[in-house]
Amino acid sequence: MNMQEATRLMKNDAATLATSSNSQRNEALEAIALALAANQTSIFAANARDLAAADENDVSPTVKKRLKFDESKLEACIDGLRQLQELPDPVGRVMLERQLDNDLNLYKVTVPIGVIGVIFEARPDALIQIAALCIKSGNCAILKGGKETAQTNRVLFDIIQASVKRTGLPENCLYQAELHSEIDELLACDESVDLLIPRGSNKFVRYIMDNTKIPVMGHSSGVCHIFVDKDADLAKAMPIIVDAKTQYPAACNAVEMLLVHRAIAADFLPQLASTMAEVGVTLRGTADVAQIIDVEEMDAEEFGTEYGDLVLAVTLVDDVQAAIGHINTYGSHHTDAILSENGDTVSRFMRMVDSAGVYQNCSTRFADGYRYGFGAEVGISTGKLHARGPVGLDGLVTYKYELYGEGQIVEDYVSGKKSFHYKDYKNE
Amino acid sequence: MNMQEATRLMKNDAATLATSSNSQRNEALEAIALALAANQTSIFAANARDLAAADENDVSPTVKKRLKFDESKLEACIDGLRQLQELPDPVGRVMLERQLDNDLNLYKVTVPIGVIGVIFEARPDALIQIAALCIKSGNCAILKGGKETAQTNRVLFDIIQASVKRTGLPENCLYQAELHSEIDELLACDESVDLLIPRGSNKFVRYIMDNTKIPVMGHSSGVCHIFVDKDADLAKAMPIIVDAKTQYPAACNAVEMLLVHRAIAADFLPQLASTMAEVGVTLRGTADVAQIIDVEEMDAEEFGTEYGDLVLAVTLVDDVQAAIGHINTYGSHHTDAILSENGDTVSRFMRMVDSAGVYQNCSTRFADGYRYGFGAEVGISTGKLHARGPVGLDGLVTYKYELYGEGQIVEDYVSGKKSFHYKDYKNE
Repeated sequence: MNMQEATRLMKNDAATLATSSNSQRNEALEAIALALAANQTSIFAANARDLAAADENDVSPTVKKRLKFDESKLEACIDGLRQLQELPDPVGRVMLERQLDNDLNLYKVTVPIGVIGVIFEARPDALIQIAALCIKSGNCAILKGGKETAQTNRVLFDIIQASVKRTGLPENCLYQAELHSEIDELLACDESVDLLIPRGSNKFVRYIMDNTKIPVMGHSSGVCHIFVDKDADLAKAMPIIVDAKTQYPAACNAVEMLLVHRAIAADFLPQLASTMAEVGVTLRGTADVAQIIDVEEMDAEEFGTEYGDLVLAVTLVDDVQAAIGHINTYGSHHTDAILSENGDTVSRFMRMVDSAGVYQNCSTRFADGYRYGFGAEVGISTGKLHARGPVGLDGLVTYKYELYGEGQIVEDYVSGKKSFHYKDYKNE
Repeated sequence: MNMQEATRLMKNDAATLATSSNSQRNEALEAIALALAANQTSIFAANARDLAAADENDVSPTVKKRLKFDESKLEACIDGLRQLQELPDPVGRVMLERQLDNDLNLYKVTVPIGVIGVIFEARPDALIQIAALCIKSGNCAILKGGKETAQTNRVLFDIIQASVKRTGLPENCLYQAELHSEIDELLACDESVDLLIPRGSNKFVRYIMDNTKIPVMGHSSGVCHIFVDKDADLAKAMPIIVDAKTQYPAACNAVEMLLVHRAIAADFLPQLASTMAEVGVTLRGTADVAQIIDVEEMDAEEFGTEYGDLVLAVTLVDDVQAAIGHINTYGSHHTDAILSENGDTVSRFMRMVDSAGVYQNCSTRFADGYRYGFGAEVGISTGKLHARGPVGLDGLVTYKYELYGEGQIVEDYVSGKKSFHYKDYKNE
């Protein structure tokens, strides 16, 4: 079956899946949890084959760490499936209930988006989580994982699909793409696919965004800033900067650049230099920074760079306005923080920085669906429309307007024979 | 100033506009209302020049009717500006307030989208309404109206811009594009423009969608269906069909095709034929319809056609499932209705039809922001993401996450030294 056919079948089944109840979808999640536990031997055997292949192909240690799927990861996945069952149904939530006139009632109700394609990194737990989020939200999903986990993913997908079918959800609600060439086929399925969520390298996400008419949710880069204001509490500042840079330098929510208020530069920069040296972070700085501390010198050309490594860029700014301007110009609208105790300055920063996350006095690394308490996340969006920031179940639904009448026609309202009498019973 | 420069300046001012208060934005709306009233002589004089040019250029009567801007239209616009001031501030609404841990508080807050480009038909009232909606929602806007209203729009825009500046909103928050060539320039400004809302012919909207990387909100066609179920109350059915087809045949929410349950075809079709003949609607029907009544015969190739005229296509379907399948395959996901008194059938239709509006027993012509009680609409979206159906102020905002801490770092939560204690104070 080619991708066009697969997604067309899925489009049909999407309407049926949209009528499923929360308990049916939860039953499917529980069936997956039980089947995963029952089939761990074959799952770990497949994972061992992936790991052996990774050894042969000199795959990097980071990737190997991600693709290794052991008992603790399986257990975490099963826990996640149970937690997801506890979350309220994202589908069928009434956002607006309005009487337009007697016997003419309008409802704005959440519904699944329909058919979603998710392309993700070589992590078997990602396959399970993404499939589970799509099922919980009533969406059909095309799943394409990293090639390094091909064996594990095949076994996992078969378990998931069989469980879903057994609980009576539509047959075509999940599809696993295994070939890299299927990604380009998927990009052309704009008739049937409603949304693409690519995860992975910036270059890859950019490629997806540039080569499809399907709406894309995600982020092609994570260039996060921290602005150290003149009114910063430096005792708080240093641990936050260390955490934001070193806790997981490859993460999209790691800090890439510090903007330091010029008034505190002489005091602050030497402390920064000494702390960063201790934790193994290389500092790069503009000329004004280089006059105060010893850094690799950089110029404005480098602003907006995502190092994804133990490298931190530093520049000086005159005030919060300049910091905001810098962030809105060079940032990636992901997550940016201000370290300051001054309420007015903070309020200005929070309002004017055009990013999915704007933080005061805490690490940018908090930008994450789990940490926000969303139960799970399907990705982080730096787009402004539909969903922004960490995307949980809420980002996987849209809404429709249902209008129930008793024979009403518009002409009666245009002619003045009747008139609207709005009455809201619910309006979020 | 070229479009790239204009939108870049706008992007800067967008951050400032985002900090404006509701009362400042309302003041600007009131200033516009007063200035429009004070300058009506020059507005009507400009409109007379547009009308004279339209006569010279043999512009169609429909377009002339739209571009004529008289006292009653001006009054309606001024009323609209006053109503908009009464609506609650769409910006700064707290959607989620969650304590993640002691002194670590997350807020999900609505914010303006930023810079929006709206391209609209030759209607002076549209210019006023769209500018007002953008101001109320704190968005910067590039406005491009139809060329037939160039003189009127120039006068109106100058009045609006001067009023906005006078009330202290940023200088570059509005820009009027006057040349058709500026549309293509605008399409290339994906660095600065966050959203495009094109209104107009299907072909034009499709062109916009196909030629920009900027997200587009709108609809390229309005192919609405009515399914006449076997359990329809035919006394209600006929007035609804007449209204949906004839009340404004060129509107995107006019019905284009009837799907008639085969079980009632013999009874219903002759009544339909006679009523449609009375109101001047030409019926086109598939072969099974043509066996029962006299119609222009059509085949499946014609399904999904938007006539925009007093023409109505008819076909027979076996049941609600077939009707749903037809609508999801050939419809434009705009607005589709079922006429039925059977609760189960209706519920199935409401859930499974994948359209922005799904209606029971009323005219498709109700699909409109004013009729839904939104105060105003900037357009109707058939996309599924962000905003769907008639788009009012709610569709012109997005949200950001604000996180306020006291020095918290992620490592403490990863290491187990601290743990999250979620507590929701608000969660919509």
